[in-house]
Amino acid sequence: MKHRLERLHSLLLEHDLAALALNPGPSLYYLSGLHFHLMERPIVLLIARGEIPHLILPELELPKVALFPYAVRAFSYGENPATWAQAFQNALEALGLEGKRIGIEGNRMRLLEYRFLQAAAPQAQFVEAGDLVGRLRERKDAQEIASLRKAVEIAEKAYQAILPMIHPGISERELASELTVQLLRHGSEPELPFSPIVAAGPNAANPHATPTERRLQPGDLLIVDWGATWQGYISDLTRTLAIGKVDEELQHIARVVEEANRRGRQAARPGEECGAIDRAARQVIESAGYGPAFPHRTGHGIGLEAHEAPYLRSENAQRLESGMVFTVEPGIYLQGRGGVRIEDNVVITEEGAETLSSLPRGLQVVG
Amino acid sequence: MKHRLERLHSLLLEHDLAALALNPGPSLYYLSGLHFHLMERPIVLLIARGEIPHLILPELELPKVALFPYAVRAFSYGENPATWAQAFQNALEALGLEGKRIGIEGNRMRLLEYRFLQAAAPQAQFVEAGDLVGRLRERKDAQEIASLRKAVEIAEKAYQAILPMIHPGISERELASELTVQLLRHGSEPELPFSPIVAAGPNAANPHATPTERRLQPGDLLIVDWGATWQGYISDLTRTLAIGKVDEELQHIARVVEEANRRGRQAARPGEECGAIDRAARQVIESAGYGPAFPHRTGHGIGLEAHEAPYLRSENAQRLESGMVFTVEPGIYLQGRGGVRIEDNVVITEEGAETLSSLPRGLQVVG
Repeated sequence: MKHRLERLHSLLLEHDLAALALNPGPSLYYLSGLHFHLMERPIVLLIARGEIPHLILPELELPKVALFPYAVRAFSYGENPATWAQAFQNALEALGLEGKRIGIEGNRMRLLEYRFLQAAAPQAQFVEAGDLVGRLRERKDAQEIASLRKAVEIAEKAYQAILPMIHPGISERELASELTVQLLRHGSEPELPFSPIVAAGPNAANPHATPTERRLQPGDLLIVDWGATWQGYISDLTRTLAIGKVDEELQHIARVVEEANRRGRQAARPGEECGAIDRAARQVIESAGYGPAFPHRTGHGIGLEAHEAPYLRSENAQRLESGMVFTVEPGIYLQGRGGVRIEDNVVITEEGAETLSSLPRGLQVVG
Repeated sequence: MKHRLERLHSLLLEHDLAALALNPGPSLYYLSGLHFHLMERPIVLLIARGEIPHLILPELELPKVALFPYAVRAFSYGENPATWAQAFQNALEALGLEGKRIGIEGNRMRLLEYRFLQAAAPQAQFVEAGDLVGRLRERKDAQEIASLRKAVEIAEKAYQAILPMIHPGISERELASELTVQLLRHGSEPELPFSPIVAAGPNAANPHATPTERRLQPGDLLIVDWGATWQGYISDLTRTLAIGKVDEELQHIARVVEEANRRGRQAARPGEECGAIDRAARQVIESAGYGPAFPHRTGHGIGLEAHEAPYLRSENAQRLESGMVFTVEPGIYLQGRGGVRIEDNVVITEEGAETLSSLPRGLQVVG
């Protein structure tokens, strides 16, 4: 943790920021090893250059201060919301942050915390620091990769455990629920990266479907998109199955997506552009005439979050570096009929890349 | 849903707001019945007075537009973040919101969405509408109460299923994991209101503890704080157990908290102040000399969120109304030794109040 704090201090200097303000979420966990609740009571960790971290939190969370792996200075407040502004005021004054440039994470920081920060330092400039945080967290160390590997292993075992239950008549929701149970049984932490997506037949044409009461039918394609959590690190996999015999075009798109997935993973190596992976996968799907049926990017980084840097969009010229871990998940979606997505988790190594997931990718026929 | 939209339109008028802007979360679900992902791609539903709702979302979520229970106008964007601002611009212009007063939920809205909204209507005034949303959602209808009742029932069955496993030697984390499995087995939706808190011995002195590898020992107090989800609605219960014989003061505080819980629930009726419930419970704990060891409010509303209006703080003069549902959860925490919390879920009826939860509250000795 101290090493991470030191890296953050250099990044703050590089970005000309006096401090970073974090609310509960993965970055706070990354820098402290502690979970805090994201609730109606604001909690903010202020990390200013050359200072020990300052923590604003409700009194009832004070016992956690002792659990920090380094010294922090706590500013606590009671149950009456009228008193909260003072705690922010005291913390920002103690750090002399008025008028300074303070980094915040726009996709985590809520207006709740932001307004207290702003009121406490009305002349401060609050600057989007999502990229800084992305750089801080995107190259995983050996211990992080071991956790990601374990999260993949748990997810794969859970999937294998539900395979015998997949047959016509079971509902999407029942399967999703059983998959969740198996994830926990196989050791996932209770906070899953996301609720499993189990989408069959026409529902599989929606990349972000929510499991419904619809029961599997012969002729359906079935998309299962799920992940596990280990030590805060997550996996994010997708496999597509056929319920009995599916029509020829659906079989065809499954082969196209499998090839796109393979090409995407093949393109992964240090020094390559993030966009190159997207383009390699997309090229296969476009050549097969399904370009418009692949409406999303090819992948995203994973770590403490299910979606984080780097993002594998075709326009992203960022270079891959060893230690980066991301999904490769091309898909084809035919509205009203079904869809296919095949998603693996890949880590960039010193020489190339390693696919952490090993479940078969071909269209498995069940039921 | 249409009825809820209509109520929202009157509340907007009453608060002199031209529109409410919602990002993914419980309020969006309340008004649409749909789940959206809260991710790095911003999604905003704009509900303006006298207009059909306008929805800004990524292209890959477009299939969901057809699932809305009423007409919405969609403004979608592609994978390149540089294009997102235009979708916001188009939606806010279509509604003529520039220069108007727009409500937002500070504890849900992130800077990510807020900055796009601000850029699209730089002269608009963004006003905290948490109270408006609280009023919209705090009185539950019969169907909502039925869902809350079911969420309590699932939670109680899951608890009973793990009771036989509670004995010295099992770790907090193992118990929490098994409780999660049992919640799902008994029908909870996979998205639990929160990860169960299982805290034993000195850890039970932390009201917001995270389960650790610590194993239960004879003489521990054990706090279990857990809940289930049904149709989006949650339960939130706590019971405290003794692992074998615990010392006399710990037995004593368990009796004090049981009495505080009873008095708090007794004070619940329509027309009474929210604060009166807190004061009734707190009075018992203060009289017993443990006032400073009860550092949190007595309860909070529950519904689609684990914490929502109304809040049972001593200073809250808001009047209870039929249909409000909340927790009553006094506690006593002795640093380094242990703690007790007993939490029930209560609904205000036309004449009084009903406690939805029925598990025994006395200190159960196990192991």
